[in-house]
Amino acid sequence: MGEVVDVHTHYVPGGWPDLGWPDAPRLRVDSEREAMILLGDHEFRRIGSNCWDAGERLAEMDADGVDLQVVSPTPVFFSYERPAAEAIRVAKIFNDLALEVCTSERLIPFCQVPLQDPDAACAELDRCLASGHRGVEIGNHAGDRDLDDEGVVQFLKHCAAADVPVFVHPWDMAGGPRLDRWMAQWLVGMPAETHLSILAMILGGVFDRLPESLRICFAHGGGSFAFWLGRVENAWHRRPDLVGVSEHPPSHYLGRFAVDSVVFDQRALRLLVDTVGVDHVMLGSDYPYPLGESPVGSLIREATFLTDDDRAALLGGNALRFLGPPRRP
Amino acid sequence: MGEVVDVHTHYVPGGWPDLGWPDAPRLRVDSEREAMILLGDHEFRRIGSNCWDAGERLAEMDADGVDLQVVSPTPVFFSYERPAAEAIRVAKIFNDLALEVCTSERLIPFCQVPLQDPDAACAELDRCLASGHRGVEIGNHAGDRDLDDEGVVQFLKHCAAADVPVFVHPWDMAGGPRLDRWMAQWLVGMPAETHLSILAMILGGVFDRLPESLRICFAHGGGSFAFWLGRVENAWHRRPDLVGVSEHPPSHYLGRFAVDSVVFDQRALRLLVDTVGVDHVMLGSDYPYPLGESPVGSLIREATFLTDDDRAALLGGNALRFLGPPRRP
Repeated sequence: MGEVVDVHTHYVPGGWPDLGWPDAPRLRVDSEREAMILLGDHEFRRIGSNCWDAGERLAEMDADGVDLQVVSPTPVFFSYERPAAEAIRVAKIFNDLALEVCTSERLIPFCQVPLQDPDAACAELDRCLASGHRGVEIGNHAGDRDLDDEGVVQFLKHCAAADVPVFVHPWDMAGGPRLDRWMAQWLVGMPAETHLSILAMILGGVFDRLPESLRICFAHGGGSFAFWLGRVENAWHRRPDLVGVSEHPPSHYLGRFAVDSVVFDQRALRLLVDTVGVDHVMLGSDYPYPLGESPVGSLIREATFLTDDDRAALLGGNALRFLGPPRRP
Repeated sequence: MGEVVDVHTHYVPGGWPDLGWPDAPRLRVDSEREAMILLGDHEFRRIGSNCWDAGERLAEMDADGVDLQVVSPTPVFFSYERPAAEAIRVAKIFNDLALEVCTSERLIPFCQVPLQDPDAACAELDRCLASGHRGVEIGNHAGDRDLDDEGVVQFLKHCAAADVPVFVHPWDMAGGPRLDRWMAQWLVGMPAETHLSILAMILGGVFDRLPESLRICFAHGGGSFAFWLGRVENAWHRRPDLVGVSEHPPSHYLGRFAVDSVVFDQRALRLLVDTVGVDHVMLGSDYPYPLGESPVGSLIREATFLTDDDRAALLGGNALRFLGPPRRP
């Protein structure tokens, strides 16, 4: 059995400073083992020290049989809605603190970038790659700009040219009386956000414009996209005036992106493998958050429809290809 | 092989009158065979005469091997956002015209009701049942009120008591720059709407409060719900403070509702059958609209993972149970 790689985990730096902005994400450290992420005065999420403590992460990885973790930002810190200068400052602090979390070679840092400013995003990515980051996590949209926005495409082209893997995470979900309860923004909003952004890549012609070498992975199994591929395929053929705007039908673009495995259900994982392809599904857990998989990797390990080779591909082989060769000096 | 029943089709009455309200749905009849649904001055959708011509519908049913059609309103006419008195007037006109469309016993009319006014909705349902309607189609929400709204639950209790099948259709999807293109409201918004409303039935405690005898079916395979059952199940257990609010975990409520089969993909249909249950998936096509299945029933007929008995259940047996005995005098 090869290495086991979890491509979807998050961190929050325990030493996150108070930037002094009234509505910036803040961290209230309540004890050695607990902290609270605050948005303004709103308690957004209680987190544990495994968000920032490398020793704890490594111990939990050992317990779950995980060799490597991709360690990505927690999206609430993206700050795409702020003036670019502020988002640049947030990214720099956050990305530099990530290197203090990722003290082991088993912890692979992915940076965040000020996506609302493509030039600044490319510059921050380059700075991070030089300092030890291995990839980048981006939110699936920046305000009303989806992944087919010209600036975002410019950034993705830069990632392809620099041979850097991109992990796309949903965030900034719509709220309202029907959605602000039962974590509906996470349970319904997130899968819909990612579904929409994969459509933006396909129907917005992004895959038509980007080199095939871009390595891009969507969180949470790619949202609801795979389950609804048939619906968009049918619409592409039957409403060419409105939907048939990409060069090829949507199914043509399978193989151009990967998804993680955080779907919690064998039937859903099977649909993913059968639709997106066994070479394009990678272990991801959403560790260390409660909506993540625990124990990490159990869904793949218990999947009776996978061969041993398939299982090894999903657990780590696909991720090692996605990550590419190490960059650290 | 038993009867083949398509539980998800729509109609628009060719004789729809201009109500004289500036933003009410209007019908511009362009020829004997074509009309345009207008919302204000906006051309919403071009439709053909198979929306209102019984002879055409029956001929197309014969061509596709369909014996019975449930004929439901086109949601853009629901008018839940209008004052109740106006919605009552729309429903009466629409429902009475439906009986002129459903001139054959092979066409089974489902009425619409002014869901924003539960008493009026119950009264209109009763009036329609007496005049020949067999069931009711409701939108999945009325403004900010989802299916767990007290008034909607009152209406659903009335349906259970009256032994009337309920078909839930998504509508009134959120728009915006990211969604007002490529029919994204239909491709992403509709599956998310239905997903959210099934969660409202489960996590909002509606199934806990309603009698098990209620027969309710959700359009488009129940939206993205079945694919994400594992995610909500995990959240229910791991965030009992926010998500674990129903009496039982979400999977407990499987069997309390049915879904139609309009998912266009064998892998998706298989997930539906394996998750929602072979007795709770029913042929639906979204006929006669282009985002529907054509030929009607091909996905089920070609499904190699179904036994002959399963196939007969999906094609019609489940629907006959859902419809219950005829009511016509």
